[in-house]
Amino acid sequence: MSETVATEQTTRALASFLAGLRYEDLPDEVVERTKDFFLDWAASALAGRGARPVVALGSFADAMGPRSGPSEVLPSGRRTSPLFAALVNGASSHVVEQDDVHNGAVFHPATVVFPAALAAAQETGASGREFVAACVAGYEAGVRVGAFLGRSHYKVFHTTGTAGTVAAAAAVSRLLGADEETMLHALGSAGTQAAGLWEFLRDAADSKQLHAAKAAADGLLAAYLARSGFTGARRILEGAQGMAAGMSSDAEPRRLTDGFGERWAVLETSFKFHASCRHTHPAADALLRAMHEHDLGADRISCVRARVHGAAIDVLGPVTDPRTIHQSKFSMGFVLALAALRGRAGITEFTEEALGDPELRAFHDKVEMVLDPEIDAAYPERWIGLVEVETTDGESLTSRVETPKGDPGNALSREEIEEKTRRLAEYGGGASPEDVQRIIQRAWNLENEGDLRDLLPAR
Amino acid sequence: MSETVATEQTTRALASFLAGLRYEDLPDEVVERTKDFFLDWAASALAGRGARPVVALGSFADAMGPRSGPSEVLPSGRRTSPLFAALVNGASSHVVEQDDVHNGAVFHPATVVFPAALAAAQETGASGREFVAACVAGYEAGVRVGAFLGRSHYKVFHTTGTAGTVAAAAAVSRLLGADEETMLHALGSAGTQAAGLWEFLRDAADSKQLHAAKAAADGLLAAYLARSGFTGARRILEGAQGMAAGMSSDAEPRRLTDGFGERWAVLETSFKFHASCRHTHPAADALLRAMHEHDLGADRISCVRARVHGAAIDVLGPVTDPRTIHQSKFSMGFVLALAALRGRAGITEFTEEALGDPELRAFHDKVEMVLDPEIDAAYPERWIGLVEVETTDGESLTSRVETPKGDPGNALSREEIEEKTRRLAEYGGGASPEDVQRIIQRAWNLENEGDLRDLLPAR
Repeated sequence: MSETVATEQTTRALASFLAGLRYEDLPDEVVERTKDFFLDWAASALAGRGARPVVALGSFADAMGPRSGPSEVLPSGRRTSPLFAALVNGASSHVVEQDDVHNGAVFHPATVVFPAALAAAQETGASGREFVAACVAGYEAGVRVGAFLGRSHYKVFHTTGTAGTVAAAAAVSRLLGADEETMLHALGSAGTQAAGLWEFLRDAADSKQLHAAKAAADGLLAAYLARSGFTGARRILEGAQGMAAGMSSDAEPRRLTDGFGERWAVLETSFKFHASCRHTHPAADALLRAMHEHDLGADRISCVRARVHGAAIDVLGPVTDPRTIHQSKFSMGFVLALAALRGRAGITEFTEEALGDPELRAFHDKVEMVLDPEIDAAYPERWIGLVEVETTDGESLTSRVETPKGDPGNALSREEIEEKTRRLAEYGGGASPEDVQRIIQRAWNLENEGDLRDLLPAR
Repeated sequence: MSETVATEQTTRALASFLAGLRYEDLPDEVVERTKDFFLDWAASALAGRGARPVVALGSFADAMGPRSGPSEVLPSGRRTSPLFAALVNGASSHVVEQDDVHNGAVFHPATVVFPAALAAAQETGASGREFVAACVAGYEAGVRVGAFLGRSHYKVFHTTGTAGTVAAAAAVSRLLGADEETMLHALGSAGTQAAGLWEFLRDAADSKQLHAAKAAADGLLAAYLARSGFTGARRILEGAQGMAAGMSSDAEPRRLTDGFGERWAVLETSFKFHASCRHTHPAADALLRAMHEHDLGADRISCVRARVHGAAIDVLGPVTDPRTIHQSKFSMGFVLALAALRGRAGITEFTEEALGDPELRAFHDKVEMVLDPEIDAAYPERWIGLVEVETTDGESLTSRVETPKGDPGNALSREEIEEKTRRLAEYGGGASPEDVQRIIQRAWNLENEGDLRDLLPAR
């Protein structure tokens, strides 16, 4: 329990900043990147369509919620009230693990901010500009709270669930036009609902989707309640019985307030490019670069040595013989095999067919991981990719990538985002190519959209 | 973080017990006391009708939920889906602070268990017996988890919110006929949603009602999801990244499992008799006894010295001049004045009129509190009431109550529960005397009820 935090007024300062955010004050690159992440998020929401946890939450929404309403459930195309759209879209956009991530806060902003903000915007008829400003507020709140709660929090709590509830509340509250005091109450009611424990990892249970779903829905609840005068604690983050007191031992209040309007959380957020564990990405990028720069076919590679940070060995090391699609995403050998032989490791590459492909298995066996002290020292601030490749004709090549694909400074291009969107939507199977093209066009034109209703035809 | 808890399999043992609970195995006194607490709870839910936080949550339910359904919102008489009935009834039954409490777990079981179980029972058409067994399971889960999480938890977390989510899930899951494995998943999904921070106390914010509402609704969500195959962590309570690891430093796993089928949580639970802070109750009971035994009118009392435990002085000491109804419930002088002059300190005694009554104010000034070392040493296991009364003709009287009214061993009689029910319902103003009489009759006949639908006429 951090004694120091109790003397600050940081929640109020944050509420003041969030309530004061105006579209007109946002730098162009912030607006453009928010549009990128919005489309990237919608693609993930479409991709989650058939996943069991998403189907279960969809059935719950059908049973407990209204069968019509202003807000879209993207994977199913149904309409319902904002609460249930936020709930199901939150789960759906997190399940294929292709949604964005803030490395520093170890927090997935899109999957909690956009479901809540979109559901509310479709109810209020908010403009695209109001929506962008609200989502920027959501990213700011979530990333700042996640960083504030620190590593001790992340050891036990799933920050996307905890900080995510506050993020969703901030976005919706901003969308509903909250002033500083109303925002403060929304944050208070959100923080006191914040939950999400990592224990489910041990059983590979469905809680990860539940956390995203509930963060979006509970944050929305907090914001709507605040609008109607329901009060919350005023110092829910730093107070003596607030979030940090209960759920962190290394909270840093300055993380909540530093650089308002100077640094932007959306610009610090990473896309996920490959559809595999993030720890495989630096090496996959380095291998793809080596093959491109040296015009090297997979058939000419006899050995790949991925030089990695220690966490990669902790997480990926146990997966020596991937037998399920999920395992294969945590196999450095398999991911590099897909990159080398299929040119990518996107969502549609990870299939049962690929798992049994002798050519991929053979390449898998050519890959080894070794700990690289320099790369390990740079982690987690930098995720450096370094591979040493030996060719069948005895050459040795080295390729290094300083910033993995998707991180700020190596973001996806609009063409790459569009392609990822098409592939994710195709994977989900619920939206036609024409539907997807329309969502793409609306995303790129977001600041000129009069409202955000009917992204997909009602089904 | 308790290292010892990680080696146990306590969540599974608890799930096995909860899933195996049968009405036929319950001792008669457990069934009868559950009926008592059900009626006592319904009365509190009716009493909360006009309270601002309840109205706000009711409006949210109207906006986000269906306008019809099988489940009753008791304060409004509306029908909706189980989720929203659980939400609003949870808030409504906690707001007037007359709902039951388990002293050892510092946990309010009724306000989270009955809203969730009733909402689900009205949907499934469960019988009264199935409902009783489910509620007993809810009390067992909540009281055991609350005690397990310990004092370190209660310092920052509102146990009625955290353990309450697990309690509601257990009740609903039992009602839905869960086997051990399904119950385990329900507890897992409940525990990972468990939340509620005391920070709101500082601002007298509305979170207390939000915690009860959300515990009921989130627990119900967990149980319905588990029924549809949604999985949760299997060791959410004792696991290395579970509830105790994240939210307690003195968790005791044996509290989860000791005395299955031998001790019963409902039999350890206390009614609230007076409508004031619990710390005023022992002295109020002792004063009422002194006046009764010595046939002493209030006009003959010149001084009352309440000998109390230290916590009473901590909580009540600052209230020297009560100016609001809420403050007056935390004023030893005012509560004893009501007891002496009006014969009771029930919910309808605390009014603006009473606040300004010169006779009550004069009696208030005759009361003092002093710390009693013996009484303090017995606390919190025993809440002993001791008053020394001086009369206008110079007599000194002492009266002592070992067990405050409402605690096990000094429970309310059925007549007293009925009278409390009528008064609470009248305070809420939403149910006619005939409606209340019908609820009373159904409660006393609960084990013979074919279903629990339509407790009140639809409005």
